[in-house]
Amino acid sequence: MRSVSVIGIGETKMGRFPDKSLRDLIQEAGEKAILDAGIERGDIKALYMSNFNAQFLCGQGHIGPLACEALGLGNIPALRVEGACASGSLAFRQALIAVASGLYDVVLVGGVEKMTHRSTEVVTEGIASAADIALEAGLGATFPSLFAMIANRYFHEYGNVRDEMALCAVQNHDNALLNPDAQLHKKITLEQVKNGVRIADPLTVFDCSLVSDGAAFLVLAATDLARAVSRKRVVEVIGCGQAGDTLTLASKRSLTTFDATLHAAAKAYAMAGINPADVGFAEVHDCFTITQLINIEDLGFFQKGKGALAIAQGKTAAKGSIPINLSGGLKAKGHPIGATGLSQIFEVVTQLRGDAGGRQAGNAEIGLTHNIGGTAATCVVNIFRGR
Amino acid sequence: MRSVSVIGIGETKMGRFPDKSLRDLIQEAGEKAILDAGIERGDIKALYMSNFNAQFLCGQGHIGPLACEALGLGNIPALRVEGACASGSLAFRQALIAVASGLYDVVLVGGVEKMTHRSTEVVTEGIASAADIALEAGLGATFPSLFAMIANRYFHEYGNVRDEMALCAVQNHDNALLNPDAQLHKKITLEQVKNGVRIADPLTVFDCSLVSDGAAFLVLAATDLARAVSRKRVVEVIGCGQAGDTLTLASKRSLTTFDATLHAAAKAYAMAGINPADVGFAEVHDCFTITQLINIEDLGFFQKGKGALAIAQGKTAAKGSIPINLSGGLKAKGHPIGATGLSQIFEVVTQLRGDAGGRQAGNAEIGLTHNIGGTAATCVVNIFRGR
Repeated sequence: MRSVSVIGIGETKMGRFPDKSLRDLIQEAGEKAILDAGIERGDIKALYMSNFNAQFLCGQGHIGPLACEALGLGNIPALRVEGACASGSLAFRQALIAVASGLYDVVLVGGVEKMTHRSTEVVTEGIASAADIALEAGLGATFPSLFAMIANRYFHEYGNVRDEMALCAVQNHDNALLNPDAQLHKKITLEQVKNGVRIADPLTVFDCSLVSDGAAFLVLAATDLARAVSRKRVVEVIGCGQAGDTLTLASKRSLTTFDATLHAAAKAYAMAGINPADVGFAEVHDCFTITQLINIEDLGFFQKGKGALAIAQGKTAAKGSIPINLSGGLKAKGHPIGATGLSQIFEVVTQLRGDAGGRQAGNAEIGLTHNIGGTAATCVVNIFRGR
Repeated sequence: MRSVSVIGIGETKMGRFPDKSLRDLIQEAGEKAILDAGIERGDIKALYMSNFNAQFLCGQGHIGPLACEALGLGNIPALRVEGACASGSLAFRQALIAVASGLYDVVLVGGVEKMTHRSTEVVTEGIASAADIALEAGLGATFPSLFAMIANRYFHEYGNVRDEMALCAVQNHDNALLNPDAQLHKKITLEQVKNGVRIADPLTVFDCSLVSDGAAFLVLAATDLARAVSRKRVVEVIGCGQAGDTLTLASKRSLTTFDATLHAAAKAYAMAGINPADVGFAEVHDCFTITQLINIEDLGFFQKGKGALAIAQGKTAAKGSIPINLSGGLKAKGHPIGATGLSQIFEVVTQLRGDAGGRQAGNAEIGLTHNIGGTAATCVVNIFRGR
């Protein structure tokens, strides 16, 4: 399999856009990515789209040809990939495999979600389709309650780290202040997080990620070609691992270690030939604050049970030893579900190009993205190197 | 890229199963395919699922890990692919690329849909998400009306072939009489089709495919391995082509020639190194009778405008020169949307193994599947050889 690089990136601002349709969001982010790559439309040989639940939230499926038509890409193959909140990374991985195999030289990957036009009840029902309807969501166990159980179990096993968990939200909000695409530009305090409206104990509204509209697109190319055609610093995909776990929380081996992350990360690190210590910064899946804490342990950045201390010590903050979610994460940048995994990669590529402005993470050479679906029933870990 | 073969197949009966959940359907068809392949569960390295719209119809997304858990496949990568009624073939193609590239040796591909528990209105709305909501379906142009416009345009360009079009339904019903998995075992006449309840002129209810529950699964393996492990006659995938077209009908170059089919078929024939005349039999996408007529022309079996005559002459009937939809097709076998593309392959493999019993198409060596999504906004053509 040959090397693949990201040669173009584009995303919309994340937020509430009642006047923008799915098509509008697709066109805005897609055109940006194509322009950024400096390629011709005709160079694109396939389109991999990610969307979580526009069928329920917008009445629109078949997003592949919708996007293909919106972007004027002709008769190329297009499809949609779905794996709950990991949909974007799954679409990326399918595109990666296709280019790496030699099937296509240049492909476009895009993700889109439109959520804010629906009521909280409808959005909650739509998101709940990522859990097991028969055994979980249909019984009332929607995601805040599932992750609250995970948090309580974590407290039981490793001690009450309520403050450190809350710090994840504080740090992500701080980071988002410097990201122009972020949905929220609003500094918050530890006390605000802890005293926020309680959603599912111990999680308050400040422990939860956002409901967002948005889109993100990437252009991938065989690295040999990328170096020839791209006007930008080429960012190579050096590792990619995908793994799964049971859909139901009750069937998992552990609630505080996500096996899907362990397996996906092990594959990605092995492919890249690196260790966790070689990673300069990472975008990790912070659907809830507890998730971010568990992830930085499962990814091997810190020992299990030691993540909270690291957070308290500022190691994951913007100027720490391994900055986490410099974009602001799902918590403050926003979480347009189908776009999220690709927006994570947008951030990593921006950083590795040295284009992140005020939120630039020094000159790290290696960045990682971690994206899960459901209660980590799906996980994709990607590793990138800027040269 | 290395050769890939189908080494295991399994499907449920298609029909109305109020007592069977998505999980039940997945387990039934998945277990059959694994058993048929004669492999161990641990041999399966990835799961590619297809589902069209369980998020809207059943409240269930994230079908990848749902199926993975239901089938006891552990932590392997799993995902869902969606491209309207072509979802099954798209999932198959992604699995094919992964095995052909050398990434995995053995993978499982499955499709499932559960539709009959919802009202006709809800099902119609769910299916309409495969069209452009903003520009078509939201304005009332659901699929029967879109394909009725296509039929009327075909009549305008090539003459009124109402009788020959109706014969597609008659022949597919005849074929389904011999398929134990078919939803309908009911002989119909030309007069019945023409005098049926009018849905959208000229289409009557007998020109429309069925609303169905069902699932179909396949095991794919690298051909070198397949020949070593499979107890059955190995069926090789010798051609696969995917192409797209605009989502909206109004933007298409032609209403009576589907460009997506032309492009997908050209790629598949080129990859297989064969001509249309080399195909012994085919399963083609008969969402409506007019679609079947257009498809047999676009696939090159008959000249444009000559398909109707060929149908009238019996060339596409079970004992004709190129039998079409020996399974009974979407019209009479059933159309559980996410499973349809895989059920088409189930039929072709069954035929090429010589296991089709009363509906066996002689000893043809090459069979083809053709699967579209929407008004042919997505198309996948696959070609198989039994040895």
